[in-house]
Parts: sequence; C-alpha cells; structure tokens
Amino acid sequence: MKCSVYIATSTDGYIATTEGEVDWLHSAGNPDADMGDNPDMGFGAYMASVDCMIMGRKCMEMISSMNLSPEQWPYGDIHIVVLSNTLKTPPENLKGKVEMYSGEITDLIAQLKSKGLKHAYIDGGFTITSFLNFKLIDEMTITRAPVLLGAGIPLFGKLNNHIKLVEAESTAFENDFVQEKYGVNYL
Amino acid sequence: MKCSVYIATSTDGYIATTEGEVDWLHSAGNPDADMGDNPDMGFGAYMASVDCMIMGRKCMEMISSMNLSPEQWPYGDIHIVVLSNTLKTPPENLKGKVEMYSGEITDLIAQLKSKGLKHAYIDGGFTITSFLNFKLIDEMTITRAPVLLGAGIPLFGKLNNHIKLVEAESTAFENDFVQEKYGVNYL
Repeated sequence: MKCSVYIATSTDGYIATTEGEVDWLHSAGNPDADMGDNPDMGFGAYMASVDCMIMGRKCMEMISSMNLSPEQWPYGDIHIVVLSNTLKTPPENLKGKVEMYSGEITDLIAQLKSKGLKHAYIDGGFTITSFLNFKLIDEMTITRAPVLLGAGIPLFGKLNNHIKLVEAESTAFENDFVQEKYGVNYL
Repeated sequence: MKCSVYIATSTDGYIATTEGEVDWLHSAGNPDADMGDNPDMGFGAYMASVDCMIMGRKCMEMISSMNLSPEQWPYGDIHIVVLSNTLKTPPENLKGKVEMYSGEITDLIAQLKSKGLKHAYIDGGFTITSFLNFKLIDEMTITRAPVLLGAGIPLFGKLNNHIKLVEAESTAFENDFVQEKYGVNYL
C-alpha cells in the first residue's frame, strides 16, 4: 500500500505554534492572489487519489476542535484511522467518522491492505515521523506558508537515520505559498 | 543598504548536524543530474550582486576549518565582516580575508553604508535570526538539499514576532535540490 503525506507548514517547518494554534496558517499569504484553476493548491486532486487516512490523536483532536459542518468536512467518506494508545473512543463530533486503533503500525497497514485499500494519507507530525522511521512513507507534498514562526511544533521529529528525498518538484503559487513534492529513497 | 541571505538547508530546515557537520549537504542530491547552464544553482550570480558579507563566528570557524585554497575561495574579494564579542583576531588562514567586529549590528550597517557598500550577504543561522529580529533582511534564498536529518542546528532561531514572506519564487533543480526565494514584509 502506498502511504503519502500532504501537509502545510510554516517556511521554518512548523505545523503549529507551541500552543498548537494554526491561525497563522489561515492568515498567511496574499488573500487577493488570483489562484486561477487551482484555488486549493492541489488538495482536492490529492484527496481523490487516496482511499484511507491514518492520523495521530493530536491531529484528530485539532480536527475535532474545528467542529466542522458536513459541508466543511474535507476528507469525503474515506476510511479514517486514528492512532492512540490511550483513547478508545473518538470525540462525540467525530463518531462514525473515524476508527480508533492502538496496535502496531505495520499490522494496521497489513489490515488496510487486506481490505483492498491502496493509498493512505498519513497526517500529523508525530505519525509522519513514525511512518518515516518504519520506512513506510512513499511520497510527501509539503506546502510552505509564507511566514516564519520562529518556534512551534515541527513537522519532522527525530529520525533513526538521514532520509534521502528524490524526484523533487516545486511550485510557487500566486498567494506566495510554496509547494514541494518528493519521493523517498530509503537506504 | 540591502541585506540578503543565500543559504542551504536540509529539507527539514537544518544548516548542520548537531555536531556542526555539513557532509550530508555535499553528498545530497543526484550527483549525475544534468544541471545545464546553472551548475551552481545561482550562487555565482548571487555573489556578483553583493559587495560585502556579514557572518557569525561559528560560520567563520566552519569556513576556516575547510582550509580553502585560493582557487576554492567562494567569496571573491568582497569585504567580509565577522561578528564576535569574544574573538578579536581571525584564525591564521583567514587573516587579511575577514575583519572582526564586536559592536552593534545597526552601527555596522551604518558604517558599511557610509563606505558606499550597497548589498550585504548575511550568513550563519544565528546572525540571520538576529538580522531578522532587527528587521534588516530584505530577501532570502533558501536552497533545500533533498535530505531529512531529523535533528541538527536549525537555520531559523527564535523570532520576536511572526515574519511575513512575500514574492515567493521556487525552482526544483535536476539534482532534486529545491530553491525558494522570498522578500520579507515586516509589520
């Protein structure tokens, strides 16, 4: 099964402030930019390419706190698995939308694969770093918002080894966000 | 006087390993890539645009440790100022090449400007962060090597405020390095 990442960071690589806030992301960039036929910077096309999602507990809690209406829900009806060793049930407003999982990541991938799922969207800094250490991430799209925070929660945590990226692509959008796409070449 | 940055980082934003090593940078990317008419990813053109350089002590010590021959020296004959409150004389192999400075950054900029200098290359993570906090950096070119280190010395340190970047440009080179260029819009 292919596992990929599609995530936004600040230009200095943070996914949230130290307090977990992402307001800076929503106010970043030039709001008057003409985004042409790509207003979502490829997110819709990416979502159409995945058939399941795996995220960490913190990532789920951030989504829960946004209290999204059905119209705002960005993940369609794909199967969403939330990794947590402590939480057995999801928050009230995510019931029926996500499934909690507390076992081994490699077992989870085998289970999803046996269900016929082919491409997982991996989300959340801690989860992405774990997947990289398991050599499970195949592709990463990082969208850098044009802002320096100077501190915060970094996208990438400690890795067991240096990881080589390949097949780099990049786009600077009219709103000054820069998107990079990489393959991953584990040694 | 214009102050700008031209620096290489890992994709996760480090300028060196925790031990200060940059070997990963020299081995990153596809060595067989056809770089066409831009083998140095714009460094020569950038150097031709600056007339002086300001770096921190650590940055100088790293350059000193490389023991560059005159043919390898990448900075031409531009005026180089090294910021240090502790070191009064440069290492033996940089004598005549750099000038030590221990005063205020704003005074230094005024001095360089009064000498008719117009565009300073600001180098070194700590120095760049200080200049950003003084609202002195006008433009940044960040060249990301296609490697994740997972830990190290970050390019950007703690900032007094969030800093808005503008006029984003990006290029993915054939060797899988991604270069981003930004203006800076201080509030």
